[in-house]
Amino acid sequence: MIKITLPDGAVKEVEKGYSPFDVAKSISEGLARNVISAKFNDTVVEATTPLMTDGSLTLYTWKNDEGKKAFWHSSAHILAQALEELYPNIKLWVGPAIENGFYYDVDLGEATLSEKDFKSIEDKMLEIARGKHDFNMRAVSKADALSYYQDKNEYKVDLISNLEDGEITFCDHATFTDLCRGGHIPNTGIVKAVKILSVAGAYYKGDENNKQLTRVYGISFPKQKELTQYLELLEEAKKRDHRKLGKELELFTFSQKVGQGLPLWLPKGAALRERLEDFLKKAQKKAGYEMVVTPHIGQKELYVTSGHYAKYGEDSFQPIRTPKDDEEFLLKPMNCPHHCEIYNTSPFSYKDLPKRYAEFGTVYRYEQSGELHGLTRVRGFTQDDAHIFCTPDQLSDEFKNVIDLTLYVLGSLGFENFTAQVSVRDIEKPEKYIGEAENWEKAEKAIIEAAEEKGLDYVIESGEAAFYGPKLDFMVKDALGRNWQLGTIQVDYNLPERFDLTYKGSDNESHRPVMIHRAPFGSMERFVALLLEHTGGNFPLWLIPKQAIVLPVSEKHEKYAEKVLNSLENHEIRALIDNRNETVGKKIREAELKKIPFMLIVGESEENADTIAVRKHGGEDLGSISIIEFSDLVSKEINSTLKSF
Amino acid sequence: MIKITLPDGAVKEVEKGYSPFDVAKSISEGLARNVISAKFNDTVVEATTPLMTDGSLTLYTWKNDEGKKAFWHSSAHILAQALEELYPNIKLWVGPAIENGFYYDVDLGEATLSEKDFKSIEDKMLEIARGKHDFNMRAVSKADALSYYQDKNEYKVDLISNLEDGEITFCDHATFTDLCRGGHIPNTGIVKAVKILSVAGAYYKGDENNKQLTRVYGISFPKQKELTQYLELLEEAKKRDHRKLGKELELFTFSQKVGQGLPLWLPKGAALRERLEDFLKKAQKKAGYEMVVTPHIGQKELYVTSGHYAKYGEDSFQPIRTPKDDEEFLLKPMNCPHHCEIYNTSPFSYKDLPKRYAEFGTVYRYEQSGELHGLTRVRGFTQDDAHIFCTPDQLSDEFKNVIDLTLYVLGSLGFENFTAQVSVRDIEKPEKYIGEAENWEKAEKAIIEAAEEKGLDYVIESGEAAFYGPKLDFMVKDALGRNWQLGTIQVDYNLPERFDLTYKGSDNESHRPVMIHRAPFGSMERFVALLLEHTGGNFPLWLIPKQAIVLPVSEKHEKYAEKVLNSLENHEIRALIDNRNETVGKKIREAELKKIPFMLIVGESEENADTIAVRKHGGEDLGSISIIEFSDLVSKEINSTLKSF
Repeated sequence: MIKITLPDGAVKEVEKGYSPFDVAKSISEGLARNVISAKFNDTVVEATTPLMTDGSLTLYTWKNDEGKKAFWHSSAHILAQALEELYPNIKLWVGPAIENGFYYDVDLGEATLSEKDFKSIEDKMLEIARGKHDFNMRAVSKADALSYYQDKNEYKVDLISNLEDGEITFCDHATFTDLCRGGHIPNTGIVKAVKILSVAGAYYKGDENNKQLTRVYGISFPKQKELTQYLELLEEAKKRDHRKLGKELELFTFSQKVGQGLPLWLPKGAALRERLEDFLKKAQKKAGYEMVVTPHIGQKELYVTSGHYAKYGEDSFQPIRTPKDDEEFLLKPMNCPHHCEIYNTSPFSYKDLPKRYAEFGTVYRYEQSGELHGLTRVRGFTQDDAHIFCTPDQLSDEFKNVIDLTLYVLGSLGFENFTAQVSVRDIEKPEKYIGEAENWEKAEKAIIEAAEEKGLDYVIESGEAAFYGPKLDFMVKDALGRNWQLGTIQVDYNLPERFDLTYKGSDNESHRPVMIHRAPFGSMERFVALLLEHTGGNFPLWLIPKQAIVLPVSEKHEKYAEKVLNSLENHEIRALIDNRNETVGKKIREAELKKIPFMLIVGESEENADTIAVRKHGGEDLGSISIIEFSDLVSKEINSTLKSF
Repeated sequence: MIKITLPDGAVKEVEKGYSPFDVAKSISEGLARNVISAKFNDTVVEATTPLMTDGSLTLYTWKNDEGKKAFWHSSAHILAQALEELYPNIKLWVGPAIENGFYYDVDLGEATLSEKDFKSIEDKMLEIARGKHDFNMRAVSKADALSYYQDKNEYKVDLISNLEDGEITFCDHATFTDLCRGGHIPNTGIVKAVKILSVAGAYYKGDENNKQLTRVYGISFPKQKELTQYLELLEEAKKRDHRKLGKELELFTFSQKVGQGLPLWLPKGAALRERLEDFLKKAQKKAGYEMVVTPHIGQKELYVTSGHYAKYGEDSFQPIRTPKDDEEFLLKPMNCPHHCEIYNTSPFSYKDLPKRYAEFGTVYRYEQSGELHGLTRVRGFTQDDAHIFCTPDQLSDEFKNVIDLTLYVLGSLGFENFTAQVSVRDIEKPEKYIGEAENWEKAEKAIIEAAEEKGLDYVIESGEAAFYGPKLDFMVKDALGRNWQLGTIQVDYNLPERFDLTYKGSDNESHRPVMIHRAPFGSMERFVALLLEHTGGNFPLWLIPKQAIVLPVSEKHEKYAEKVLNSLENHEIRALIDNRNETVGKKIREAELKKIPFMLIVGESEENADTIAVRKHGGEDLGSISIIEFSDLVSKEINSTLKSF
C-alpha cells in the first residue's frame, strides 16, 4: 500500500500501482469520469500512470488549465496520426498544446494543404477519436529511438540526438507512435469535437535560413457545444479586432512612409485619447501629482547611467549622431531618467516628499517588424507615466494610493473583472537583477501588503520582476474573457542610487528616496486597443467621440434639428446631425454602424412639442422627451460609470 | 546743375558737387544739423560726398536705422583709433556696426584688456570725438593699399588681397586711417556719449582653428541722456532675462546629463504651458481645427519625399539605424510630412475641405552648442503647429481666419505692439526655391491682400521666404522695445505636389489642395521665453501659476486662512497659503518676489467680517472685501485681456 496526499490534505491509502484514475474512482465515479490528467509530486503524469510511491496528487479535469493542456496535447497526437494517414509521405516535427488549442509542424514534402482540406482532416481525427484508443507511454533507448526514425524523419532524428539516453519516451495510441514527454488524457474517446483553424508557414527551429515547414493549427473540445461557443467567440473577436474597429471608427492609421509600428492618431482618435488623458490628469491632480514635460531624446550617457543602455542599447533604435559627431543621443525608451534629473534640480527635505512627477511621455523601442501588431505592439507609444519619489516610510502608503488611483481608472472605464500579478525576483538567479537583496525584500513585502490591504485578487509570480525592481501588474479580462496586462506599479531602489538622488532627513543627514514607477493605463496605444476590443467600439458614454446624432425625418425639420444640436452643445453633449436627403431608416442603420449611443429623431410631433424621440444604440426606444430630460439621462448614465475620485 | 529727387517726389536743382548735407541745408537748417548719412541712387554715401549726377537722394538722421548704422560704424573707427593710441602694438582686423552698437576685432599681441580698462578707452574715444574730425574717404590702388599695411598688419593685407583693384577705399579721420567701404557721419563731434560694453574672444574669420582675436563691443549716442536710458534698459533686460526668471520661478531647467538645448519643464512651467495650450486648443476648436497626434520620428524616405532631408539632413541630427540595419529613421524636424500622410488616409471631396489638422508637435533640430540660448534657441521644441488643406478658392479666406486667430492669441497675452513681415521670394534667385513661379505669385498676392484687409502694419521683405513658399511672420515688440519674431503663417504649394495630395473637385476631377502652415505662438519654448521677458514674470492673470496668496497675520488665523483658500478654489482661483511663522511684512516681501498678483491678508478684523484685505503686486491696497467681490474683481481683470474668440 502507498499513501496519496490530496490537495485538501486528505490522505488516501491505496494499492501500489493504482493510477490517478483509480484514485479518483475511489473518491467518486463522477470525478473519475472527468479526470483527464494529473500531477504527482510536481510532475505531470497520465491519468493512467501507475503510482509506485507515497506522494501528493492533484487531479486535473477539463476545467483546469493543466487539464486543457493534456487534452490539446493529446489532440495534437490525433492530428499527427490523421495527417500521416491522409498524406503518407509527410514528416512530423513537433506539436505542442498552446493557449487556445494546439498545432503540429510538418514537412508536407510534395503535398499541399489548404482550407478545403480541413474538413477531411477533422473527419479523420474524429474517426480516430471514436476508436477510444488509449495513450500508452513507454521508455526507449536512444539507439532504438534513433533507429526507429532513421531514414524516415531527419527532424525527429535531430530532436532525439539532443536528448539524454534513458530519458527518451515514446507514446503509442492506435497504430500511431510519436516521440513524446507525456501528459495525455486517458484515451482518444474524450475528444468529441475538433476544428482545424488555419495553416501557416513556420521555419524549422524558428530560423529563417532553414526550411519552411507547415504549421497546422487546431482546437478540440470534450463537447460539440463548447466548440460552437468557441467559434462564435472567435467570430466576435474578429469583429472586435481593434485594427478593424480603429479603421472603421477613424481613430488611427499607419503609414508605410512614416514607418511601421508608428501610429498616426486621426482626429477622432486624438480627441478620444485627449479625453482619456484629461480624465487621468484630473484624478492625478487630486492625488497630488504634478505634470512635467521632458524631451524625447537624451544623451547616450544618461541611459548608461540609468542602466537602460545595457538593457535596450543594442537591441533597440541605435544612437543618433550629430553633424560634428561629438555627441550621441538616444530615443528615450523610458521616461524615468528624465524625471530623476528633474528631481535633481532642487534640494529636497523630507518635508517636501513625496514628489509625484507625471508625464504623458512618448517613448520609442525597436520591435522587429514581424512582432508589430496594431496598437498593442508598436515602436512608439505614450506612457501615462509617473514617478513618485518618497521616503522609505512613505512607500507603503504611496503604493496603496497608486492602487486606489488605478482601481478608480479601471472602474471608470467599465473594467470590473481584473486580477493583479505581483512579480517578484527569481531568488535563484540574483544575476538577473540590479540592486541589493535587502531592498528587494523590503519592496516585495510592501507590495504584497498593499495588495492584501486593498483586497486585490492577486497571484505572486516568481522571476517576473523587472530587472530594477518588483512590480504589481493589473491583468484585466475583456468582454470575451481574454486576459490583458494593463497598468503597472513598480518599486525601484536602483535608479535613486544610480542618479544619486537624495533628500535631507529629519536627522539633517542625506538619505536616498525610494522611487515608484506607475502607469494605470500602461500606454495610451495599448489601452485604447484593449478598450476597443472590450467594448467593441461602444465606449463608455463619457468617452465616446459622439454621444448623440440628430436625425431629422425630412428636410422640413432641419432647422429644428439645428436648434436641437445647438441646445445639446449648450448641455455639453457631443452630437452631430445627419441632414442628408435619406430615409430615417437608413440614417438609423448608419448611426448604428457608427456606434453612436443615442439617436434623436425629430419630426412634426417632436418639433411641435419641442422634444426629441430618443432611440438607444441597439434599438431600445425611450420615447419623446425634452432636451433637459435627455441631458439628465445622459448625465445619469455618465455618473454611473464615471465616479469622482 | 544737377536734379536731385527727394523721397516725397520733390525735385531740387542744385550745383554739381553739392553734398547731401548741402541739399539738407537748402531745405532747412534743422534738417542739416541732424543729417548724418545718406543714400544716393541705392548706394550709401557720406553726408559730405559730392553728388555729381542727377539721382534720388534719401537723407538719414539718428532716427533711421541707416543713420544709426553710419553713427556706430563711425564710432568703430573712433574705437580703433583709441585702441591704437592706448595699445600701440595691436593689429586691427574689422569693426562693423551691429544691431545695438558696434565692435572691433583686434589682435592685442602682448597686451591684455579687461573691464577695468573700459573707462580709459571711453575717455580716449570722447577726447577724439571732441576733436570734431571729418571722415574723409579716398580711393587707393591695391598696390598702395597693400604696401600701407605690409609688415604691419597681416589681417588687413589678407582682406585687401581679396579685393578688386579700383574698388579699394581708405577712410581718414584725425591721424587715423582704416581700410573702409564708407558710410560715415560727417565728423566725430556728433558722438557725445560712449560706452564700452564687453570684450570677448572671436576666432579670426570665425574659424576655431585660427588665432583667437579680441572683440571689443561698444555703443555710442548723440546725447548722454540716450546712453543713460540705454544702460537702464540693459539693466532691466538683465533682470528680465528669461533664463534667470525661469530659474527663479521654477519653470524649466536644463540638465547636462539629458543634453544641452533640451529643456525639462518643471511642474510650474509645465502647468503654465498646459494653460497656454488649452487656451489655444479652445480657440482652435471654435475655428474648426481638429487635433491629431503623430510620432516624433519617421523613415528617412519620408523626409526625402518632403524635401526636408535635402534641407536639414546633413546639418541636423543624423539618421537612427535599427539593430538589423535595414531601416533608417529621422527625428522629425517638422510635423508637416506626418500631417500630409494623415490627409492621405482618406479620399476627400471639395465639400470636405478645408481640413485643419493641429498638433502640439515636438520637433528636433540640431544647433551647435555655441548657438544655444535658454528657451529661445534649443534643440527640441514644441510647435503649436497646424496645417490647413484647402482648395485654391478657399486660400484667401483661410489665410484671413488664421490672421484673426493669431491676433486673438497675441491680444489675449497682452501684446498690442506688433507688425507683420511678409516674406516673399528673391525673384533674382529662383534656384533657392522649390515650386512653380506662377504658384508663388498667387500665394504672395493672397498673403498681401489678407494683410491689407486685416489692417496689419506690414512690411514686405524680398528673399526672406521659406524655401517652400512665401510667409507672413508676426513680429512683436516687447516691453523693452525689442523685436521678436513669433507666430508664422506660410503658404505651401510644394508639399501637396510631393505627397501627391488630391481632392475631388465639383467637376469630379482630381485636384491639388493648397496647404497653409501656421503657428500663432511659433513654439511653446520661444513663446514662454518672450512672455517672460515681456512681462518680467508678471504673466497675465489668467495664465500666471498662482493668482493669489493667503497670508494669515498670525497662527491664530490659520484656520480662517484655510477656509479662504478653500473658497478661492471653489471660485477657480489658483491660490496658495503662507502659514509659516513669519511676520506679514516678510511674507509680503517674498510674495512680491514670487510675482503673485494678489496678497490676501487675513487677521482679526477680516476673520470677524468674513473678508480679506487685498494688496496687489506692486503695493496697491484694495481694502477689505468679501471673497465674492474678490472673485468678481479677478474675473473682470481676466476678461479685460482674455476675450472670447
